[in-house]
Amino acid sequence: MQIIQGGVTAPIGFEAAGIEAGIKYANRKDMAIIYSQVPCVAAGTFTSNVVKAAPVKWDREVIDKSPYVQAVIINTGIANAGTGPEGMECCQATAAQAAAALGLPMDAVLVGSTGVIGPQLPMDRICKGIDKLVQAKTHSPEAGTDAARAIMTTDTVHKEFAVQVDIAGTTVTIGSIAKGSGMIHPNMCTMLSFVCTDAVISKELLTTLVKADVKDTFNMISVDGDTSTNDSFIVMANGMAGNPEIKADTPECKAFYEALHLVNETQAKALAGDGEGAKALVECVVINADTKANARTLARSVISSSLNKAAIFGHDANWGRILCALGYSGADFDPDHLEVYYEGAGKKILLYKDGLGAPYDEDEATEILSQPEVRILADMKMGTETATAWGCDLTFDYVSINADYRS
Amino acid sequence: MQIIQGGVTAPIGFEAAGIEAGIKYANRKDMAIIYSQVPCVAAGTFTSNVVKAAPVKWDREVIDKSPYVQAVIINTGIANAGTGPEGMECCQATAAQAAAALGLPMDAVLVGSTGVIGPQLPMDRICKGIDKLVQAKTHSPEAGTDAARAIMTTDTVHKEFAVQVDIAGTTVTIGSIAKGSGMIHPNMCTMLSFVCTDAVISKELLTTLVKADVKDTFNMISVDGDTSTNDSFIVMANGMAGNPEIKADTPECKAFYEALHLVNETQAKALAGDGEGAKALVECVVINADTKANARTLARSVISSSLNKAAIFGHDANWGRILCALGYSGADFDPDHLEVYYEGAGKKILLYKDGLGAPYDEDEATEILSQPEVRILADMKMGTETATAWGCDLTFDYVSINADYRS
Repeated sequence: MQIIQGGVTAPIGFEAAGIEAGIKYANRKDMAIIYSQVPCVAAGTFTSNVVKAAPVKWDREVIDKSPYVQAVIINTGIANAGTGPEGMECCQATAAQAAAALGLPMDAVLVGSTGVIGPQLPMDRICKGIDKLVQAKTHSPEAGTDAARAIMTTDTVHKEFAVQVDIAGTTVTIGSIAKGSGMIHPNMCTMLSFVCTDAVISKELLTTLVKADVKDTFNMISVDGDTSTNDSFIVMANGMAGNPEIKADTPECKAFYEALHLVNETQAKALAGDGEGAKALVECVVINADTKANARTLARSVISSSLNKAAIFGHDANWGRILCALGYSGADFDPDHLEVYYEGAGKKILLYKDGLGAPYDEDEATEILSQPEVRILADMKMGTETATAWGCDLTFDYVSINADYRS
Repeated sequence: MQIIQGGVTAPIGFEAAGIEAGIKYANRKDMAIIYSQVPCVAAGTFTSNVVKAAPVKWDREVIDKSPYVQAVIINTGIANAGTGPEGMECCQATAAQAAAALGLPMDAVLVGSTGVIGPQLPMDRICKGIDKLVQAKTHSPEAGTDAARAIMTTDTVHKEFAVQVDIAGTTVTIGSIAKGSGMIHPNMCTMLSFVCTDAVISKELLTTLVKADVKDTFNMISVDGDTSTNDSFIVMANGMAGNPEIKADTPECKAFYEALHLVNETQAKALAGDGEGAKALVECVVINADTKANARTLARSVISSSLNKAAIFGHDANWGRILCALGYSGADFDPDHLEVYYEGAGKKILLYKDGLGAPYDEDEATEILSQPEVRILADMKMGTETATAWGCDLTFDYVSINADYRS
């Protein structure tokens, strides 16, 4: 497996574009297209929020019922959630317009939206945007980056990532773009992530792999505890690498899964580290838990704690808040038999052991907490299960961004 | 039922004091005593955090096994959590010292701590503090207020409240002090609340009433989503009012329960409204839910949402965040059949109905959101169940307070 430059246009046959459609803000790219030159099998996971955005409903239906997809049209600025039947009509109209322009059936077109909940999409600008996207799309690294930039909202950096993996002698490429900075507590995240690959793989196996991997990647990040109405994670495979089809329970499947996992983990961490107002990526690794579910629950509880997040922003080694968050996570454990550490800056310091705070050097702790990446390690000493979760610190900028989002 | 001035010393036979023991900060009261002239039956509910502070363990044991209690010794500055066997020895030593000074058995003494997790209590200062408390305690309104002030941490105002209720011709008084501003998401709350009453009531019935009422009061508030290691809510009844004993399922029981509920609801709201950095009390009322449990889940999800809290701080009518928080609460509902309103400043405005945003006047919304108390009303249109939850806005001051708590 090899990390390469690029994003969604890294695999063979994928084109992209990002353009200015003027949906909410002037002078910024706010619509993107991802297009495959040939039909793709697709798998997806979507928000578990009871309130689902119209594009989430549209995409679930397409991915459930349609054997192949070939294009995705994405807008930012407006989430198309809380928009009733008119919201669904906007999805249909978007798909219809793109299908006509691209010569595809409507049910081969996925849609994605992110932004403010409530307002209806300005369909005149969306339709003009689609025409511009169809004309602009190309199979180039720059086009992938344009698409990655066009899907940003409060993100401060665009997120694209690509890897290549050898599948039975054939090089298969997986490329991804993602966005998401606030309302991030994915329980599938307003994260959007689109992964494109040229692998030959069945829809069924791709679906199995996607549903398994999201549990350890996007579902293990949190910025603010708010599970969005629009979270969507979609993988499209167009088969143009020409590898022998990947079958379940084979070394090739394992290699592909590891590559997919690296893509998703990298993007999930990028979202957490670029959380609204964030100054630091916070990683919590739970080791030696009794069950995988408890390991995940414990790790996610720590990175979700407002008090722990604020302490890290303050570079304050207030490990009591880590202990507290482990304690209310919902997972059971013996508080007298776990160890808690900070790791970073090439150092590892013990904070808590055998029911007691451990003596540590405050200057070392402060140095670790001043890094752009802070790791908290909890050794539960109960079993062999491990999980990692990613979040960020809670800063003045988070409050500032979200006290005045709509204006 | 009548609201009266006073706190824990309002009922007959209850004494209190608050003094400076120098536990963490100079020149502030940081230890309190509550003392009854005669033995009391007691009921309590405590944190559900797996990591329980030593005083929580001590008090649970006392309340479970001891027929009567007569005194509570409380310190702030240090939580006595994450302190191992030495922490439990501190509780024992505190109870022993107080018991000797007051002429009581050790198991008639409850203890309470709140502050930083991790450090051990300075027992020399605690012991000197106990002696000062025992000498200072009196049955006076000022003494109750001193105790209320002495248990504050980041609270900006002290919280005391008292009511009188007629029980079969006898006036019964219920008085309360409470504290708690951060690490508040009680799932009983670092809240501490102590209620004293002179009612004649059995320990069994008092326990039943306490466990029932906490679900609709302290367990329905949140400041930051962090369930403390120290949350304790204790009610003591000394019987000195001389009313005929309150029996279950009687009009007298109902009258007492209503009075107890008003005390707890008032104190719970006071904690939420004085949450760390808070500028506004946020109340979410869910009506016409299908089940009581779902009504509580929905209401608490809305007041817990960081995004909704930040929007209210910004006076931004971003109702999509309310809808989103209802949606990820865990309770199921049809997003196309509920109504969401803001209430305040004598106005009520519809925000969302039939799956769509409603037209409303932004100036009116801003006026409502600029009040010190903001109410969100969600009509689920599914049944007849109602619940109310209380929280606060998310402000720059919350971040500031918690980025630098230990120093």
